[in-house]
Amino acid sequence: ILSEEQDYNPLKGITLGGYGELHYNALSGSGGASDKREIDFHRFVLMVGKEFNERIRFQSELELEHSLSGDGEPGEVELEQAYVDFDLNDHHTARAGLFLLPVGLLNETHEPTRFYGVERNPIEKNILPTTWWEAGAGLYGQLSDSVNYAVYLHSGLATSGADSYSVRSGRQKAAKAHASDPAATAALSYSIPGVTVGGSVNVQGDVTQGEAGAEKSEAWMGEIHLDLARGPWGLRALYAQWNLEGDAPAALGADRQFGWYIEPSYRITDTLSVFARYNQWDNTAGSNGSAGGKEQVDVGVNWKPHEQVVLKADYQWQNNENGQDQDGLNLGVGYEF
Amino acid sequence: ILSEEQDYNPLKGITLGGYGELHYNALSGSGGASDKREIDFHRFVLMVGKEFNERIRFQSELELEHSLSGDGEPGEVELEQAYVDFDLNDHHTARAGLFLLPVGLLNETHEPTRFYGVERNPIEKNILPTTWWEAGAGLYGQLSDSVNYAVYLHSGLATSGADSYSVRSGRQKAAKAHASDPAATAALSYSIPGVTVGGSVNVQGDVTQGEAGAEKSEAWMGEIHLDLARGPWGLRALYAQWNLEGDAPAALGADRQFGWYIEPSYRITDTLSVFARYNQWDNTAGSNGSAGGKEQVDVGVNWKPHEQVVLKADYQWQNNENGQDQDGLNLGVGYEF
Amino acid sequence: ILSEEQDYNPLKGITLGGYGELHYNALSGSGGASDKREIDFHRFVLMVGKEFNERIRFQSELELEHSLSGDGEPGEVELEQAYVDFDLNDHHTARAGLFLLPVGLLNETHEPTRFYGVERNPIEKNILPTTWWEAGAGLYGQLSDSVNYAVYLHSGLATSGADSYSVRSGRQKAAKAHASDPAATAALSYSIPGVTVGGSVNVQGDVTQGEAGAEKSEAWMGEIHLDLARGPWGLRALYAQWNLEGDAPAALGADRQFGWYIEPSYRITDTLSVFARYNQWDNTAGSNGSAGGKEQVDVGVNWKPHEQVVLKADYQWQNNENGQDQDGLNLGVGYEF
Repeated sequence: ILSEEQDYNPLKGITLGGYGELHYNALSGSGGASDKREIDFHRFVLMVGKEFNERIRFQSELELEHSLSGDGEPGEVELEQAYVDFDLNDHHTARAGLFLLPVGLLNETHEPTRFYGVERNPIEKNILPTTWWEAGAGLYGQLSDSVNYAVYLHSGLATSGADSYSVRSGRQKAAKAHASDPAATAALSYSIPGVTVGGSVNVQGDVTQGEAGAEKSEAWMGEIHLDLARGPWGLRALYAQWNLEGDAPAALGADRQFGWYIEPSYRITDTLSVFARYNQWDNTAGSNGSAGGKEQVDVGVNWKPHEQVVLKADYQWQNNENGQDQDGLNLGVGYEF
Repeated sequence: ILSEEQDYNPLKGITLGGYGELHYNALSGSGGASDKREIDFHRFVLMVGKEFNERIRFQSELELEHSLSGDGEPGEVELEQAYVDFDLNDHHTARAGLFLLPVGLLNETHEPTRFYGVERNPIEKNILPTTWWEAGAGLYGQLSDSVNYAVYLHSGLATSGADSYSVRSGRQKAAKAHASDPAATAALSYSIPGVTVGGSVNVQGDVTQGEAGAEKSEAWMGEIHLDLARGPWGLRALYAQWNLEGDAPAALGADRQFGWYIEPSYRITDTLSVFARYNQWDNTAGSNGSAGGKEQVDVGVNWKPHEQVVLKADYQWQNNENGQDQDGLNLGVGYEF
Repeated sequence: ILSEEQDYNPLKGITLGGYGELHYNALSGSGGASDKREIDFHRFVLMVGKEFNERIRFQSELELEHSLSGDGEPGEVELEQAYVDFDLNDHHTARAGLFLLPVGLLNETHEPTRFYGVERNPIEKNILPTTWWEAGAGLYGQLSDSVNYAVYLHSGLATSGADSYSVRSGRQKAAKAHASDPAATAALSYSIPGVTVGGSVNVQGDVTQGEAGAEKSEAWMGEIHLDLARGPWGLRALYAQWNLEGDAPAALGADRQFGWYIEPSYRITDTLSVFARYNQWDNTAGSNGSAGGKEQVDVGVNWKPHEQVVLKADYQWQNNENGQDQDGLNLGVGYEF
């Protein structure tokens, strides 16, 4: 009887999940920076998957950013993941579609219950630039019990002088994306209980995507990260750097963009944890006089009444080279299922 | 065997529902009002929930308004609910996130199968202003078997002289919402079989949200409502009023905005019901000469071939002080699951 | 125990499915046509349904086009289906809501696993114009074991001289749609194993929807199609034509718009198929000198590692009367569940 019922189950093999995060920012600006008193349902996500058979699976992530999308509205609807995985054997899987690149600590695992701080750390926002997804194909799997790898060929960034060659603004999000010049990513990580060390490299054929009249600009990104846990103590650290070729990025100092952070944490009880984080980054590090260097300290707490629900509070202090700082309190509510 | 299967159920604790309504309006304008011949899938909603455990639950409501959202398109995608409930005990629950305010008869229960008329009544659109959601936190529960309460601290409205201090246009929808000045809502209702009497109060710290150069404007809303059922007879009635402080609202007559309706109904058969409704409202009631008074009579029928499916027809007559009336027929199809 | 569990199943009667397609186009333009090197997650669709009881069902299709929707973004969110079906008896069903019109081979069955070619054929894009949905009501069912019918009264197209009376641009998508003049569609098809022959007629009361100052323009569309399968061989063919009344369409040659294609295919293995398609169409066929005639040949392959997953490749050659051709390669990934 059970097997017959399963044959008729219209939801067989289907998964449905999601996550979300509501943010409240109460920041005071100094040195010309503006105040910010804002409440925003920053991200609302639904994830639908389907297991076609034991070897072939589909996964997707659909996101409403900033709660309200439409003509003249602040938010947007984004498809962040939609790919098919084909297991080649027990250790190697081929992937095709639209997927998150395997860079850094947050990009592939960005649910609010999985990281400290109301807002994501600024390095994985402004340098990496999380959430970063592209369309393409590749392979991932295990080289041994403790070594994982991933290699993908995919759509590239499209940035230009008008955007100061900002990496973050170059994300095309697979929406009628210019595809003159592809990109590639390779990642490697080593994990044993309590220790993960990893890194990734990204290579761009031309970050202008053949923009008319613009100089071709090859680019590459390198990143290494660390995630340690020992009893109640935790430590995360990450360093990421971009190099953009060509005279135009160099003229703006955008030929070198880098950042790093270190984040110790301590679990006081099963549900309550505290953390501190020091962040430093510069999107115009190729220029001596650009005053683009930025520094931020975050100290805060995560309270998780359930493994999949989190209430967050933190305080941020900025110390930017241009003197424009936003300091203050952030509060958040998040969930994942 | 069963318990093992349940452990592996990827949809465990997940709920999925929705509702929708398609409207056809055939209205003739007089006194300068325009005709309206329009067909519109006004609201399409998906609701996803998750029971994390017996005490902690998530619920959400994602809506596509007007069927088509994008740059230059008429519709929009809105997150109307996304909150986590924490049961404190059998009678009291804490809520945090983005939620519907407990005001009026429709705001928290706005599925098309739950009310009469193709369009929602104009009082709960223009005065209350349904659908009204904010981000924040609070408590709700039971004070006794027949008395329910709710108290919330939440994001406030942001309206201004440019919008004639219209309450409806002040909804920020938790989308990068200005949060200089919070708001609060308290609601109380008494229910015994066949009788519900309730009311609510909303207080706004400053409906301009600290708009530069604008006078601070505190505001409060009070509302009472009634829902009676006796055999085939039903009766709903509601009165709501806003008071906005300050000279700027007063200069436009928007310092007082009020409305009320009364709606008798009769269930002819299990599936067929008829209703009539008298509505009166004024968004510039603080001014004697504004001619903002509006009056509307609706008479119609609901046919429900299934408890969760409704076909509606009604006729509306307007008698507005400015002489601009739209009279005519409305047809609708709705469902809920 | 089982029956009790089913009573408490919050997902009882609910269906959840979807489909998607990622496209890569590498086309070279000649005669003034532009090159196209683009990667785009063209369509991401979720489908939610509910069986209210044995006779009454709901079905919906929500689509994100071009991966990213919002102010200034290239994509859009569309409701393509949301209707309630009422079985009148075993052979006839009434439908009300927003639904796909029963025209052509792709309009009602447009998942990427169901057709050949990365892009849909140009006839069912530019003439029919798939995906074509309207709001309304009607009947469908079986006249005999092999004869199916459908008749619907529904919202009409709204096009004008500003859009060269293009049929495709006339789709209002039930979004605050002008509804001065309704439309109707009737379809008939005959199916026995390996053979389907069908056709449909659409009549528009006024494709300008009573546009102020414009001449009323009645229109009708006729279409016939064929779908044959014999062993590994397949053949699809379709002819469609529009006639628009009035002087304004005639002045642009848009009074007659037509197209046809023929598409033989061969299944090499269970998972690998090849096809060729010849397409010809003209949206200004009413004019002798308009040079609006278009011709395209497509040759390609579908590889389906699973019945519901497809990888596609094809090559296209254009031979347009205006000399502006785009020739080149298209690649695609698609899935359906």
